[in-house]
Amino acid sequence: MLKERDIISLFKEIVKVTPSPSFLLKGIGDDAAVLEFAETYFLCTTDLLVENSHFRWEWMPPFALGYKSLAVNLSDIAAMGGKPECFTVSIGLSEDFPEEKLFGILKGLESIAKKYKVSLIGGDTVRSEKTVINIMVTGRVEKDQVLFRSGAQVGDVIFVSGCLGDAAAGLAILEQGIEDESFSDLIKAQLLPEPEVALGCYLAQTGLVHAMIDISDGIASDLSWICQESGLGAFIHQDLLPISPACKKAAKRLKQDYLSWALGGGEDYRLLFTASQETADELKQKVAEELKREIFIIGEITAGNRVYLIHNGQKKDITGKGYSHFCPRNV
Amino acid sequence: MLKERDIISLFKEIVKVTPSPSFLLKGIGDDAAVLEFAETYFLCTTDLLVENSHFRWEWMPPFALGYKSLAVNLSDIAAMGGKPECFTVSIGLSEDFPEEKLFGILKGLESIAKKYKVSLIGGDTVRSEKTVINIMVTGRVEKDQVLFRSGAQVGDVIFVSGCLGDAAAGLAILEQGIEDESFSDLIKAQLLPEPEVALGCYLAQTGLVHAMIDISDGIASDLSWICQESGLGAFIHQDLLPISPACKKAAKRLKQDYLSWALGGGEDYRLLFTASQETADELKQKVAEELKREIFIIGEITAGNRVYLIHNGQKKDITGKGYSHFCPRNV
Repeated sequence: MLKERDIISLFKEIVKVTPSPSFLLKGIGDDAAVLEFAETYFLCTTDLLVENSHFRWEWMPPFALGYKSLAVNLSDIAAMGGKPECFTVSIGLSEDFPEEKLFGILKGLESIAKKYKVSLIGGDTVRSEKTVINIMVTGRVEKDQVLFRSGAQVGDVIFVSGCLGDAAAGLAILEQGIEDESFSDLIKAQLLPEPEVALGCYLAQTGLVHAMIDISDGIASDLSWICQESGLGAFIHQDLLPISPACKKAAKRLKQDYLSWALGGGEDYRLLFTASQETADELKQKVAEELKREIFIIGEITAGNRVYLIHNGQKKDITGKGYSHFCPRNV
Repeated sequence: MLKERDIISLFKEIVKVTPSPSFLLKGIGDDAAVLEFAETYFLCTTDLLVENSHFRWEWMPPFALGYKSLAVNLSDIAAMGGKPECFTVSIGLSEDFPEEKLFGILKGLESIAKKYKVSLIGGDTVRSEKTVINIMVTGRVEKDQVLFRSGAQVGDVIFVSGCLGDAAAGLAILEQGIEDESFSDLIKAQLLPEPEVALGCYLAQTGLVHAMIDISDGIASDLSWICQESGLGAFIHQDLLPISPACKKAAKRLKQDYLSWALGGGEDYRLLFTASQETADELKQKVAEELKREIFIIGEITAGNRVYLIHNGQKKDITGKGYSHFCPRNV
């Protein structure tokens, strides 16, 4: 069975034999491609959502599908320190797809497009037995502010911008059909993720961040990308991972492991980034002052090429372990 | 049942309530979006291909799927008079998708990417029960050369760049499983369409073309788009439509109507364009000299808002009639 990383490797073979124009600063291998256009960098990213792989209609409200399908792409632009500007939508719907459901999807798209001030510039509509939505987002970033996965340095502190595992917990709750008001934030994390656009732009402007990625596959996998692209290793402390009380409560109720959700559940769409030890406190303080929010230190970049989880003096190699290893999605 | 035009209208509602930045010259409503970047226009287009809607694995070779999925997007850039530069690929594959088949798809992508010198800059790979491929292509065009659908003028001559109906004939032959060497060009037209990139760029450079579109849904539908966007009407002469002998032969063999294939079969990926009566001969001659090929006059732009097919002194209203009206695809 081919894994996403294998397929990406195959894609890289195509890259090798096709032109590499001088304006192409970064192709495959980051959250978004980076093209040079005159005074700024142009960013471009795309994500495909497929029925029964990413969502089930049994629990996905149409509004949320529209909202989320754009949100996950905005998150990629945010992870480059960029400002999203435009998007295209390709949508595949069955012949008997209900009109009201399509209206819902479009309302969700409209809502998030207005919120983040991005313009719909094109698309494609086709027939498809299962619902599919592909969105492409373009954005821009100042040349001296773009943040790659590859910029991490030995000794860097690793930050995460919010709680981990909520989206995976929300998915588990939706799949089980549990109705409990106290889990509403978890469900919201799964259905209506908020891309960290303001934080991403702000972090880029501080000039203090070395490397950044958004957490789409879980921090074990996404931190491994930063390490791989930077040619380094890392460790994170289990006790430092920010995990919400609701997530812990849901894990208990469902007899599941919240650590698996946090490390490999994915879809949290938080930012994972690194900055030098010396400026870490300054960065925390700036974010607190300017954006009135907290960011969390969870570990450190090291030499080597492995990612370790540290707990009770033990270290466990979690390099490259995405959601498929920790918690295979049921959908 | 929602039609593509209805969904596009709904998309336009989103456009109304989201920002319309000054750099956005053209959003929805042409072959590609046009964004202004310093000295040039940046083009962006996207197309989604879905198993059992656009192709069946019974007759689609993996190489051809890769080739065609990029070709149809390059055709959209060509229709703006642009030069394609970069592309992204989102691909959805089933869990047990055979590796060799994926290699085939990627070989097809690689082959056409090399031929048209476009760079793979990003993508997404996901699980999907049915195979889906979404491709997005970016390109560029000089500001004084971009060609919109909306530029047609009353009295303009309507040109088409090659035979119509071959791709639809090829599809019918593949669907019926007919094996006959004399139909190989039709099958090639369906499986391995060649986007008219060189012609599109050349036409844009002549400064003689007023409006252009690529023929993806059949000329009845695509000419209607030119008319709608230009606020005009048109007529075409049935006897002037270039139809290949192989297409006619296939129609006879399958007891189908080649005119339906030509008008509404779609997927020919030829260019449909208009130029003033006075320069029509000059344009034909220039293309013959420079590109060693023929272009075909098939009709004329008029006032009004209808598209007519003229035959034996009779005129028939074919406004907006795409493949779904003339020849519902079996796939």
